[in-house]
Amino acid sequence: MPKKILIIGTGGTISSIDTGEGLSSSLPVEEILYFCTDQLKDLDFQADIRDIINIDSTLIQPEDWIKIAEEIELEYPQYDGFVILHGTDTLAYTASMLSFMLRNPAKPIVFTGSMIPAPIEHSDAINNVADSIRFAVDGCPGVFVAFNHKVIRAPRASKIASEDIDAFASVNEPPVALITSRDIKYNKKMIKTTDMPFSVDTLMDNNVFVLKIFPGLEPSFVEPIIANKNISGIVVESYGAGGLPYRGRNLLDVLANVAHKIPVVLTSQVVYDGVNLKTYEVGLRAHNAGVISARDMTKEATITKLMWLLGHTRDIERIRKFFEISLAGEVSPAEKAT
Amino acid sequence: MPKKILIIGTGGTISSIDTGEGLSSSLPVEEILYFCTDQLKDLDFQADIRDIINIDSTLIQPEDWIKIAEEIELEYPQYDGFVILHGTDTLAYTASMLSFMLRNPAKPIVFTGSMIPAPIEHSDAINNVADSIRFAVDGCPGVFVAFNHKVIRAPRASKIASEDIDAFASVNEPPVALITSRDIKYNKKMIKTTDMPFSVDTLMDNNVFVLKIFPGLEPSFVEPIIANKNISGIVVESYGAGGLPYRGRNLLDVLANVAHKIPVVLTSQVVYDGVNLKTYEVGLRAHNAGVISARDMTKEATITKLMWLLGHTRDIERIRKFFEISLAGEVSPAEKAT
Repeated sequence: MPKKILIIGTGGTISSIDTGEGLSSSLPVEEILYFCTDQLKDLDFQADIRDIINIDSTLIQPEDWIKIAEEIELEYPQYDGFVILHGTDTLAYTASMLSFMLRNPAKPIVFTGSMIPAPIEHSDAINNVADSIRFAVDGCPGVFVAFNHKVIRAPRASKIASEDIDAFASVNEPPVALITSRDIKYNKKMIKTTDMPFSVDTLMDNNVFVLKIFPGLEPSFVEPIIANKNISGIVVESYGAGGLPYRGRNLLDVLANVAHKIPVVLTSQVVYDGVNLKTYEVGLRAHNAGVISARDMTKEATITKLMWLLGHTRDIERIRKFFEISLAGEVSPAEKAT
Repeated sequence: MPKKILIIGTGGTISSIDTGEGLSSSLPVEEILYFCTDQLKDLDFQADIRDIINIDSTLIQPEDWIKIAEEIELEYPQYDGFVILHGTDTLAYTASMLSFMLRNPAKPIVFTGSMIPAPIEHSDAINNVADSIRFAVDGCPGVFVAFNHKVIRAPRASKIASEDIDAFASVNEPPVALITSRDIKYNKKMIKTTDMPFSVDTLMDNNVFVLKIFPGLEPSFVEPIIANKNISGIVVESYGAGGLPYRGRNLLDVLANVAHKIPVVLTSQVVYDGVNLKTYEVGLRAHNAGVISARDMTKEATITKLMWLLGHTRDIERIRKFFEISLAGEVSPAEKAT
């Protein structure tokens, strides 16, 4: 029996054509697949298609994440795997959030896209779509990003380049697999199986704010943000291993005050290695102020995990506990990372 | 005559010792140099030392940038080169701002630091300090970051890792030089000389705000920020090649309104390749809304360039023009980048 794969289209560069006013999403999945015919001719599979939205991923909103999750929930029993075509700009956000919303998948759910529109010669769309379908047919369970011959666990993917076709990094863990023209080379210790039943939980609260720290940021600019009662949680993007400025311009005190009212999660501006609040005096002070460490999570996983947790609880201590554990492979065990 | 080098200490991991409450800056430059004695024994130079501050670089503030610039201005005639030891967390910010403040240097001004405190065995401090002094003695003019055997033009340096000793990337251009144990291999086309006189211009306005975009960011959270009359300019960190969300949650309109009053500069969350507002429809809309493109500049150079320009003018069109040209090698020529 050929494997049944559902291919879900959401738009992005992969589906773009030149409108004369810049590239804009418009091709349906069927036309994108047409360009991959050669690459997939020897693969035994059967594909169905759903074009659920068709937008530049700059425009993706949390409601779209719920729509994708609900589509997969509805079709889960009928298919052996899922491939979602998505713009690259917010792909890591969507894939991270879906890895929290889709609990314990026993089937492959693979996000991909491209840096060059599918109709353009030498587009990376052809390899990315073909690799994603091959990976989905192979049956490895979980939510993944497949891009430029790498398969990355979804909440570990981060976009690091805006032109290079090797646009995504697997942050703080190796890729789950490398896809060659001949086979799929798995990194076996990265494969997680589960006996827990699959479920979908789309509860979330998008009312978070991301505060980027830089030298000279005036605390008075931050105060109206933290005084806003509609903000449920804050992600602070600080420097290196983490810490908050308190000399001259005291952001530590400002954020310590709010960290008792809503969760304040500290992540880093740097791409690799993550936050460790136990190494430096500036980090320990932030820890002692009640700030939650994002440890070695990506920024995209940190923001979406906070939104998802806030959909389930407002209790800061519960949220702190959930940041200490991995829900979907998004963070290393605490012994290693903190 | 041996070359005279001034080594300026500002603190950072390189000067840290374990206080029992986390690593904290405390060693003076003299003690750091002690660890490099072997590496420098064959180099003909004479060093003087100034410990001007001694802090974790998380705590660096714009007033410290001015202090470093003024120290170099004062000592410029007496020395052949300058090495500044700095914490890595904000090193790229300080080095970027100093590359704007120090106009047309005819001597080397080299920033370095380390990921491991100098007294700890196998610290990268030893190579980084020795490389920086060797590079300063060699006489290549400009402001640079020397780290892990690479010399990067200062406003192209960005910290990309919080633990790895290869912590800095040369973003969107090759390193100026690679330093081996035997020699310095220059990338000759990266060396810029100038006949303009050296001058120091520390005028700046730190009243900027950095707005990070993510899916689900509520425009109502942004409105109080842009309504704040004390904010002189905004850097927007958007996605990929650049663009602003307008579907469902309309940040484009909110930022278009403010872009007529104060400069709004668009940069990207991704590390490499930069912003190009002419490719995608979402980018063109942002461009048409009056947003200034940071093109292929680093985030650190974008923020500090905006601060420095705001110290000289509040005229949005003049600032836009200055973002189109390179002041210190921070951005590629417009033909290439936009």
